[in-house]
Amino acid sequence: MAGNTIGKLFKLTTFGESHGEAIGGVIDGCPAGLKINKDFIQLELTRRKTGPSFFSSNREEKDEVNFISGLFDGQTTGAPLAFVIKNINAKSDDYETIKEIYRPSHADYTYDKKYSIRDYRGGGRASARETVARVVAGAIAKQVLEQSQIKIIAYVSQIGSIKLQKTYKELDFKTIESNFVRCPDADTAQQMLDYLEIVKNNNDSVGGVITCVVSLCPIGLGEPIFDKLQADLAKAMLSIPSVKGFDYGSGFDAASMLGSENNDIFVIDNNQQITTKTNHSGGIQGGISNGEDIYFRVAFKPIASIMKEQQTIDRNKNQVTLKIKGRHDVCAIPRAVPIVEAMAAIVFTDHFLRNKAYLFDKK
Amino acid sequence: MAGNTIGKLFKLTTFGESHGEAIGGVIDGCPAGLKINKDFIQLELTRRKTGPSFFSSNREEKDEVNFISGLFDGQTTGAPLAFVIKNINAKSDDYETIKEIYRPSHADYTYDKKYSIRDYRGGGRASARETVARVVAGAIAKQVLEQSQIKIIAYVSQIGSIKLQKTYKELDFKTIESNFVRCPDADTAQQMLDYLEIVKNNNDSVGGVITCVVSLCPIGLGEPIFDKLQADLAKAMLSIPSVKGFDYGSGFDAASMLGSENNDIFVIDNNQQITTKTNHSGGIQGGISNGEDIYFRVAFKPIASIMKEQQTIDRNKNQVTLKIKGRHDVCAIPRAVPIVEAMAAIVFTDHFLRNKAYLFDKK
Amino acid sequence: MAGNTIGKLFKLTTFGESHGEAIGGVIDGCPAGLKINKDFIQLELTRRKTGPSFFSSNREEKDEVNFISGLFDGQTTGAPLAFVIKNINAKSDDYETIKEIYRPSHADYTYDKKYSIRDYRGGGRASARETVARVVAGAIAKQVLEQSQIKIIAYVSQIGSIKLQKTYKELDFKTIESNFVRCPDADTAQQMLDYLEIVKNNNDSVGGVITCVVSLCPIGLGEPIFDKLQADLAKAMLSIPSVKGFDYGSGFDAASMLGSENNDIFVIDNNQQITTKTNHSGGIQGGISNGEDIYFRVAFKPIASIMKEQQTIDRNKNQVTLKIKGRHDVCAIPRAVPIVEAMAAIVFTDHFLRNKAYLFDKK
Amino acid sequence: MAGNTIGKLFKLTTFGESHGEAIGGVIDGCPAGLKINKDFIQLELTRRKTGPSFFSSNREEKDEVNFISGLFDGQTTGAPLAFVIKNINAKSDDYETIKEIYRPSHADYTYDKKYSIRDYRGGGRASARETVARVVAGAIAKQVLEQSQIKIIAYVSQIGSIKLQKTYKELDFKTIESNFVRCPDADTAQQMLDYLEIVKNNNDSVGGVITCVVSLCPIGLGEPIFDKLQADLAKAMLSIPSVKGFDYGSGFDAASMLGSENNDIFVIDNNQQITTKTNHSGGIQGGISNGEDIYFRVAFKPIASIMKEQQTIDRNKNQVTLKIKGRHDVCAIPRAVPIVEAMAAIVFTDHFLRNKAYLFDKK
Repeated sequence: MAGNTIGKLFKLTTFGESHGEAIGGVIDGCPAGLKINKDFIQLELTRRKTGPSFFSSNREEKDEVNFISGLFDGQTTGAPLAFVIKNINAKSDDYETIKEIYRPSHADYTYDKKYSIRDYRGGGRASARETVARVVAGAIAKQVLEQSQIKIIAYVSQIGSIKLQKTYKELDFKTIESNFVRCPDADTAQQMLDYLEIVKNNNDSVGGVITCVVSLCPIGLGEPIFDKLQADLAKAMLSIPSVKGFDYGSGFDAASMLGSENNDIFVIDNNQQITTKTNHSGGIQGGISNGEDIYFRVAFKPIASIMKEQQTIDRNKNQVTLKIKGRHDVCAIPRAVPIVEAMAAIVFTDHFLRNKAYLFDKK
Repeated sequence: MAGNTIGKLFKLTTFGESHGEAIGGVIDGCPAGLKINKDFIQLELTRRKTGPSFFSSNREEKDEVNFISGLFDGQTTGAPLAFVIKNINAKSDDYETIKEIYRPSHADYTYDKKYSIRDYRGGGRASARETVARVVAGAIAKQVLEQSQIKIIAYVSQIGSIKLQKTYKELDFKTIESNFVRCPDADTAQQMLDYLEIVKNNNDSVGGVITCVVSLCPIGLGEPIFDKLQADLAKAMLSIPSVKGFDYGSGFDAASMLGSENNDIFVIDNNQQITTKTNHSGGIQGGISNGEDIYFRVAFKPIASIMKEQQTIDRNKNQVTLKIKGRHDVCAIPRAVPIVEAMAAIVFTDHFLRNKAYLFDKK
Repeated sequence: MAGNTIGKLFKLTTFGESHGEAIGGVIDGCPAGLKINKDFIQLELTRRKTGPSFFSSNREEKDEVNFISGLFDGQTTGAPLAFVIKNINAKSDDYETIKEIYRPSHADYTYDKKYSIRDYRGGGRASARETVARVVAGAIAKQVLEQSQIKIIAYVSQIGSIKLQKTYKELDFKTIESNFVRCPDADTAQQMLDYLEIVKNNNDSVGGVITCVVSLCPIGLGEPIFDKLQADLAKAMLSIPSVKGFDYGSGFDAASMLGSENNDIFVIDNNQQITTKTNHSGGIQGGISNGEDIYFRVAFKPIASIMKEQQTIDRNKNQVTLKIKGRHDVCAIPRAVPIVEAMAAIVFTDHFLRNKAYLFDKK
Repeated sequence: MAGNTIGKLFKLTTFGESHGEAIGGVIDGCPAGLKINKDFIQLELTRRKTGPSFFSSNREEKDEVNFISGLFDGQTTGAPLAFVIKNINAKSDDYETIKEIYRPSHADYTYDKKYSIRDYRGGGRASARETVARVVAGAIAKQVLEQSQIKIIAYVSQIGSIKLQKTYKELDFKTIESNFVRCPDADTAQQMLDYLEIVKNNNDSVGGVITCVVSLCPIGLGEPIFDKLQADLAKAMLSIPSVKGFDYGSGFDAASMLGSENNDIFVIDNNQQITTKTNHSGGIQGGISNGEDIYFRVAFKPIASIMKEQQTIDRNKNQVTLKIKGRHDVCAIPRAVPIVEAMAAIVFTDHFLRNKAYLFDKK
């Protein structure tokens, strides 16, 4: 079974290559009667595209989304929503020189071996450009989630070794978009920017971490034993290009904690509702949302395309020196913020519908 | 869609509750004609059961697996393999006193809210006892993988703050089973054991990390864009009870690395084969195995059932003091080693078959 | 992908061979909180088992269903429902003589070729005994459907060339169980019985047709374009052993009708509801239930095991004369009535949940 | 779960409405390295479009297929194949007058009730125009099947009460395309044409039957117990607009046959291969292809859009008289021939890959 579909009830299938005619997707399972806000979708696409002018790649795409089907009078009809974003500014000539070369830590080699044929232009199907389709689907998912109250917010919490020291509760999410690195803490953001300047001058790239917070999630999302909420989130995140790790709640830190530290004591809040004193569980217990904030971290490796010269191998096993042309991101993490949100929105919409299917008044 | 099935071509569906009649599973998609080594399955079940006598829970189960279907003359027939492991030593009375109580950081509360009804005996469906079915399926998956040469080995690399400082290449995997903590380094193992003694005396529990290494994996496993090998591994691992995080290759460390550090330079090895100088990619590039070792880490939280007194809430929102009866593991990480291996084996078998379906000589 | 699962939200996986330890199944996706009436399940199993004493096979099975998981205090918990029915009266020795022989119009040959190994005892996985698991799942599905008002009734409408001439509207369904052939018309039933007597005396078997009527189905079930209600019904019916055809509404007769004859004119009924004057659509338009009765026919071939001597071939391509031992049904159609109902119930439950997942108040 | 995807390993998702921008599809799971013959695809699309000039609807579409992704240098890359066929000649004004009206035996009413919103233009998603996407996918599937030798041929075997009396073995398939009704028997074809002339003059429409023959199918396709080959074929056929019935082999006729008549006796042919004397099994036994010809019938109702005046109801429950404007097919059966073939090709390709995944040399 090929792997270009994600979700069970809210199902996204994507298609398209970096330098093909278009990137696109089909959403099957979007509830009918939803008024689609296209401006919002465009806004999300812009967030994905935007980074600090001097850190971003030089490919300029309008990223206008065109819906081919599934909408009538601006509303979803229950039919599949197909959409495309044209590739306009693809300069395939840039890639002619490297069509035989396996770029280090790219997918060139594995695609070649798996499929015996490879669209080498701009990374083909393996390019991060594919994520525009995820962002469109995520923007629609976010609109479905408005039916409940679920809110999904992500931000950059680490670039290189510079880590945001505050927890998400201490941050003002409104400031996320106020700086180029999408870090909601002015001091840390400045340190990150300064550091990126150095990395850029060294013709290098650097990794980082995105933290995502999902609030107001109803109790009950997640389908044990295998489709636990955290399991589907992990899969969705690890499917994003360059992602190397995922943890939620106390995460990897839980490994060095005692049970008495990590356990979340149940208490009654001021509204006489059950809540927990701490939230090391990250809003999920037994694979099911418990009504607390869900938060998780996504680790990204540095972009593999660096401006430094690198040694590598070509298809014919010749040693070659690679000097990547064009300009590439020094750090893609800020631009990945809307992608993380989009994938989370798809997972939550899917689980929202999955949970709803089984809820009914018993006789 | 409910969530008790994992895999697409090698599909495992599990069932059973901690104190029900049995735990079991159905494997649909095991190739026909495979001679099943039942002793090996029983050995794997014993590995899951075994821990240091004084750290383990006092439930004594024989864990004998009985195959109901799918075998004929000891071979798989292509029909679904159904199996059960009886629950013999379940003492449900122990749980009578806590049937109304929400134990901290357990699934009691979320199951109650999601399903409105809950089998409270021993954690019911949410109990880690469910993992016996995973171990059986994993043991069969390992036997399918003998068709290729894939080898899967896991070990404990951290307990509490005690971390194994060596990389997997510096270790002798033959020593994994030589100590109670399944750590293939005698000194570190001793430190872990000493530390567990302290934790135990404090009536507490502690978390840890398991590292898993998959070697001799053929190039080409993994199905972009969503069913990347690391994505399906992440999902499988996060579906294990108590797991809080996953990373592979350079993982979370990649966040603070430069591209020039993290990139794996392609070189030609002594056999004139393409290989990489380093392996920060963790054997996966673009979601597809590249022939190098695949390695990943799985973070576990401390067991939620501790012997200390804890404050909590019951179904009727009364505050209660919880003192868990019986004896529970101080640290389940060593026992989770075969579970991590089993889930990995299921994922690799599934992807091995998925890849094979599309391989053929083109005209 | 192996094929032992049916349904998307109400998912049944079956396992077991005719002469193995047991036949069983796992239902994943049964809503929680349903009080299961086990007597009703047992009743359905008895309907499947029962036929006229002198027409039925001599295998006497108690067919007691044992639920391994998913029930607590007699209610579904949302966890998978696993169940087994033991094979007690299997006499495998009867089959020893034919283990190398390919019985005409049985699955011996194809199983041998597909899987290279075959459980020849009693037909193994290909035996109609497997349908006990379908009947159990169908009985549970019927109980889920009580949440809506959907009623599913099947009866025998043809045996050999003896056809029931009345439409389902002219019949009294209460009389279905009043005769051995499950035909709700006394005269036709008697003709069928007389005919079966002749067939029996000739050591032969004979085919037939079952008609199924689903009433009170809510409008809106069915998921275009591929999972149309009739498409999923057709698949479910054709998956039953010996089934050779399916049609619904005007069915094959529609081929010789004019549009002006076949079209169902919309009218307003006495309750001011929209209905249709005729119902050639069989209650489904555009793949979606329209609130009218859904009715369909299922054609069965004669049982392949006949008492007459037959020429055939064995594994080694030797010509052999086959004289089947034991006693076999002359006509399995009456016993297939509860199987057709069960498969219909599974399809309707699945679509009931699928439809419900997408229904919500739009903002 | 929405229903716009068919297939497991060769997966087709379709999208688009009759009068939307385009109809299209995504194929996920087409093996890599396949040289796509676009002329052949276009030819198949032309077959679907073509009928006798005076029987066909007046919509003139070029039906040019445009591949957006998945091809490189004319070959499949293993990435999803997305394609669109633009709707150019859609005249939505024709439908303005009927946007509130429920046309008899159309999907207007059920779509309205299920989704609460409906793209009424030309039938929207429920239009048979959607089948262009199936034909494109079928044409690609046929090219995959060239890897094996499977041949799929369909023809018209009945229009109204005029039935082709010959079996498929007596026919010369080369003559199928030689007449407007796609009936490979000149006399019967002429009778059909004469009859259609009468129907047309009466402003009526008429149903029919298509027979499909699949030859040279390897032994072993089909996945018991639920995904039997005939079950998946039945589903695929019943998903085609206007289809009311399916049977295979002796089909509905088997109901009136004796076991001794219907059983296919195994014999050894001149090449020392196992074959059957008769083929009432229709090439499938136990849900698995047995190497003989597979043949099945598909029954179609008459087109619901007739030129006669009809009484009906509108959204507001008013009685209205409907006089359909524009011109419509008198009989769509000839045009459905390539659609039946396409759906068969998709099913066989899917099962070809599914079977292949499990075939391997056992140690």
